[in-house]
Amino acid sequence: MPHSRTVRCNCISISKHVNPKFIETLEIIPASQSCSRVEIIATMKNNGEKRCLNLESKAIKNLLTAVRKLRSKRSV
Amino acid sequence: MPHSRTVRCNCISISKHVNPKFIETLEIIPASQSCSRVEIIATMKNNGEKRCLNLESKAIKNLLTAVRKLRSKRSV
Repeated sequence: MPHSRTVRCNCISISKHVNPKFIETLEIIPASQSCSRVEIIATMKNNGEKRCLNLESKAIKNLLTAVRKLRSKRSV
Repeated sequence: MPHSRTVRCNCISISKHVNPKFIETLEIIPASQSCSRVEIIATMKNNGEKRCLNLESKAIKNLLTAVRKLRSKRSV
């Protein structure tokens, strides 16, 4: 997953069917001027590989709803 | 005999009253052998500063519920 400025989004491809048991950390990157979509990047436990999760997954949509609610607050 | 455990949490102090408008990315690090608590680290837009969010905040609890649901799935 290159992070160069020529690539506007971090995610080039989306991994479908990621087993959450093997997810170490989750990074949520909001939509911005450089990338028009939210990106959710999972770092995998076994090999540190970074995978971009599928925003169409129900569990991810649920997570994004919680993030939106958080962002709508004045303070967290 | 249990192994002696080194506590290696990323967060030393928790920032209360972080304005979500200034949060760039959110990183969610689950509890593990090296750190017994979940950690949520926000990278701030203006200066790239990393701040550890308060797990007692209602919006964060809501977010963690969504993460737990995600982790309970077979696939995301």
